[in-house]
Amino acid sequence: MSNPLIPDREVAFLLDEVLDVAALCALPAYADHSRETFEMFLRSCRELARDVLEPSYRPMDEHAPQFANGRVKIHPAMREIWPRLVELGIITATCSPEVGGQQLPGAVAVLGNAYLMAGNLSAISYAGLTHGAAHLIETFGDERLKRDYMEKMYAGAWTGTMALTEPQAGSSLADVQTRAKPTGGGHHLISGSKVFITGGDQDLTENIVHLVLARIDGAAPGTKGVSLFCVPRLRLQDGALVDNDVATAGAFHKMGWRAIPSCALSFGERSDCHGWLVGQAGRGLNHMFQMMNEARLGVGAHAAATASVAYQESLEYAKVRPQGRKATAKDASAPQLPIIEHADVRRMLLRQKAIVEGALSLLVSAARYHDLAKHSGNAEEKAQSQLLLDLLTPVAKTFASEYGFESNALAVQIHGGYGYTSEYRPEAWLRDQKLNTIHEGTSGIQSMDLLGRKVIMNGGAALVAFNAAVQATVERARKAGVAAEWLEDVNDAVAAVNELTAHLGALGLKGDVEGLLLHSADYMQLFSIVVIAWQWLDHAAAAREARKPASEAFYAGKLAAAQYWLATELPRVQQLAALCRSGENSYTSLPADSF
Amino acid sequence: MSNPLIPDREVAFLLDEVLDVAALCALPAYADHSRETFEMFLRSCRELARDVLEPSYRPMDEHAPQFANGRVKIHPAMREIWPRLVELGIITATCSPEVGGQQLPGAVAVLGNAYLMAGNLSAISYAGLTHGAAHLIETFGDERLKRDYMEKMYAGAWTGTMALTEPQAGSSLADVQTRAKPTGGGHHLISGSKVFITGGDQDLTENIVHLVLARIDGAAPGTKGVSLFCVPRLRLQDGALVDNDVATAGAFHKMGWRAIPSCALSFGERSDCHGWLVGQAGRGLNHMFQMMNEARLGVGAHAAATASVAYQESLEYAKVRPQGRKATAKDASAPQLPIIEHADVRRMLLRQKAIVEGALSLLVSAARYHDLAKHSGNAEEKAQSQLLLDLLTPVAKTFASEYGFESNALAVQIHGGYGYTSEYRPEAWLRDQKLNTIHEGTSGIQSMDLLGRKVIMNGGAALVAFNAAVQATVERARKAGVAAEWLEDVNDAVAAVNELTAHLGALGLKGDVEGLLLHSADYMQLFSIVVIAWQWLDHAAAAREARKPASEAFYAGKLAAAQYWLATELPRVQQLAALCRSGENSYTSLPADSF
Repeated sequence: MSNPLIPDREVAFLLDEVLDVAALCALPAYADHSRETFEMFLRSCRELARDVLEPSYRPMDEHAPQFANGRVKIHPAMREIWPRLVELGIITATCSPEVGGQQLPGAVAVLGNAYLMAGNLSAISYAGLTHGAAHLIETFGDERLKRDYMEKMYAGAWTGTMALTEPQAGSSLADVQTRAKPTGGGHHLISGSKVFITGGDQDLTENIVHLVLARIDGAAPGTKGVSLFCVPRLRLQDGALVDNDVATAGAFHKMGWRAIPSCALSFGERSDCHGWLVGQAGRGLNHMFQMMNEARLGVGAHAAATASVAYQESLEYAKVRPQGRKATAKDASAPQLPIIEHADVRRMLLRQKAIVEGALSLLVSAARYHDLAKHSGNAEEKAQSQLLLDLLTPVAKTFASEYGFESNALAVQIHGGYGYTSEYRPEAWLRDQKLNTIHEGTSGIQSMDLLGRKVIMNGGAALVAFNAAVQATVERARKAGVAAEWLEDVNDAVAAVNELTAHLGALGLKGDVEGLLLHSADYMQLFSIVVIAWQWLDHAAAAREARKPASEAFYAGKLAAAQYWLATELPRVQQLAALCRSGENSYTSLPADSF
Repeated sequence: MSNPLIPDREVAFLLDEVLDVAALCALPAYADHSRETFEMFLRSCRELARDVLEPSYRPMDEHAPQFANGRVKIHPAMREIWPRLVELGIITATCSPEVGGQQLPGAVAVLGNAYLMAGNLSAISYAGLTHGAAHLIETFGDERLKRDYMEKMYAGAWTGTMALTEPQAGSSLADVQTRAKPTGGGHHLISGSKVFITGGDQDLTENIVHLVLARIDGAAPGTKGVSLFCVPRLRLQDGALVDNDVATAGAFHKMGWRAIPSCALSFGERSDCHGWLVGQAGRGLNHMFQMMNEARLGVGAHAAATASVAYQESLEYAKVRPQGRKATAKDASAPQLPIIEHADVRRMLLRQKAIVEGALSLLVSAARYHDLAKHSGNAEEKAQSQLLLDLLTPVAKTFASEYGFESNALAVQIHGGYGYTSEYRPEAWLRDQKLNTIHEGTSGIQSMDLLGRKVIMNGGAALVAFNAAVQATVERARKAGVAAEWLEDVNDAVAAVNELTAHLGALGLKGDVEGLLLHSADYMQLFSIVVIAWQWLDHAAAAREARKPASEAFYAGKLAAAQYWLATELPRVQQLAALCRSGENSYTSLPADSF
């Protein structure tokens, strides 16, 4: 049986039974859509993912891009895949028709993307980055940049990148040193080095457009001096494409994500690298954050998708691999059982299921808030949705990647010795997954964003919105007949989050920022556990509401996974909250030479 | 600064301050030794590890063994390394002088091995496997096998393997199908296939001796029909080495452990594969368990060592890598701080330290119990030590590999984007580490061994011995002036383990084996947390007792790591105990098609 990547039944459940995404079609922005058009798009995505991307995964993992003679050659399979992705419209799925887009809700697009990511996460990344870079120009660029560059990117003729990181400026973007020298010609001359530029070079398309953070000569130090530039590899000059002095310095060898190169780029070695300001000078980081927030949800989707394909693989393996007998079995000559009959294998499978489906659900929910924040006609709903989107973005990225890594390790474990070999794919997905806790803001950065900004901003407005959202789910679950005990457990956990946040927020108000952030990683973990419990409560409610006997086994799985999460993970919240509250300071109190 | 692999100060602390390993020299078996001879051995190990093994690590990881024309070629660097390992006497470090050994205590040998494993874990494995295989012949083989095969193996002229796994029999050794047909010539004819045979082929030594599990024709089904055979690649016949019909069917591509091949072997394709019975017919698994238990502690040592080298690497990186400023910093033009100044990086480092040093300490403790169980003159101490060794073996293997994997992931995380590249080594150590939760009995198998056998055997005798050992440490810590609160926390946790074990043991007595084992993975985790808390309490006591001002920073680190473990991990015990007690059955209750 071939790997479904993500089961279609799961996608339908999320869209129709958990969230009623089709209701978005009542908004003018999505008036041209219907559940049927969603399905058409999703069907195209899943077919491409299963028929084209998934079979390309292993060869592309085995043959990483090669750097030679100053250029990167990528796997030739990408030349078959790219036109199909373009044809599918994945680059502009959520864009407005004015730029050739389908204007699909993000809640639908994320699921289409998830199929493709589960099929071959790094192959699809060319499209995600191109969308993000083009969207930055669309939002902040001038008409010439749109015409000269954005259009080609949205059309898939050229690809795009985000070029932020420098050797000395990874997480600390305030320290970007790439220079932009003003000229009289409307452009700046760019000079500097960037590293870890995903898709920074390829031999797939004629041109590559980099969205580059740089510092205009004389700009203030720190984040306020950083501006955003459009810096193509080839620039349009008098209607022709000419070399723009962007050199590829190398490609990093990396443990996963092998279909797309991570490059070191050198701008302006011959002092002839033109860059055009995108948006306002000194607002580069703010502008880039539009792409970063999208990219963070994108990383979350990659993480959930990578965990999903591995879960499906280990589930199938567990059903067909005979090994051992029940602990109570007496007859040594009886046939061996499929390993799914062993309790500990089931534990690992259900843990994967709870993580994978919980993460995917959170990502679709976040995307739906994005849709409502952008297009709802109700000002209150719009504002609340924006708050929830802001709050859930770091959680969705971090939960999916951290727990997703554990989930991918379980898929290897279930495969036993075979799982450690590259005859089977779980080891590759485990390697892929590790990047997701690092790129687009490490888990540490996300945790500080959640605790130091999101839950305390505007007097805790986002947390209030979160409380209301959970309450709505609790009410739904109560009406559906979900066990009262589960509702209490979730309520208690949310109350613990509220109390803890008030306590820590008070430290912040007193100016004790370090005290506030001391346990930000623990806070992220407990908050994530509660958020996923909320998702599972919603799934349990939907399962109880359901009147589809054909899906009985499916709903039983939902209820079991919800039970698992509430019984196994949710109790950790009280312990983690006590830890955060305690101010336990072992790691900050000791001198560096004591480690 | 070069990576110390394991800090020498840490080794001295374990030997002298935590455990007083030199006291073992009072036993007749170790009378020829002293702290000075220990040091000579350890110095040789650390020099070889740092000067020879560590520099060979990356090239050997990059160029895995190749299978061609029916044989495996390993990395040529191994030809330089192997004679040095032999010369060091690592194969026979713990063996008696009668077989050319140094008869070092295991508590010392494990530390010498740990240096070598941290330097290049799979290169050193040839030695560990050769020791284990030769030791099986020494213990159970007849004089001819000792003379013909064991001597050559102990001398390092030939290597050895353990050949248990078959395609259909991984964890389930009861299902071994390799056949042994009796002959009139004192040997059996072996036929069958084995997979995942580490070091199963190589072009390093003239011969390879496989210790093979096989089933004598007509033997009973199940484990009782399994016997152990010595099956060399080349057999001694009339004083000459002749081909013994052992074919290499292939080498697995694997995610780590790249210096040593994992092979598929085919025995007796031409019906001319001679095997000699080792020990008693039908007792093969029992005999093999001698090697398996040693091997499990060996895997624990590999895991702790791999976590250690990665911890040291991320610690050094954190001290020299500037990135960002304090959250409260105002001056964006001030120099960036080394990342060890950031609280979340410190959290990751201290977590690694607590895991690495806790695991290493547990392994040395277990080895010391092994020494006492074998050589103590006091019958009571001998018996108690054997119980503790039996109890701690699955814990040491599982804790070091499961938490070690998390620790290795943190080392990648601290390196940020660089950590994902193979320019830096943490990604390779992360790949290496994953095998340790799988080979020599998966974590699931270890957990069932702990809960289904070790803690309940002999009316809970091992658990009683564990209680006494912890009490001794608590008393030591009390006298040393360790905070009373820490002692209470450890006492409470042990009490929780006792209560839970009594509860679960009662299920077992009632015949509810599945109920007993339902949460064996959770039980393993909580038990491990308590065991490591015990180790940290011992370290804290030793640190408090110390009167060595030169090591003040070192002791501060010990106390901080102990505080970290007791405040962060130990509280999980109550939550996990409640979970185990609850009988939470989400994963066993649902049908297979509900996953």
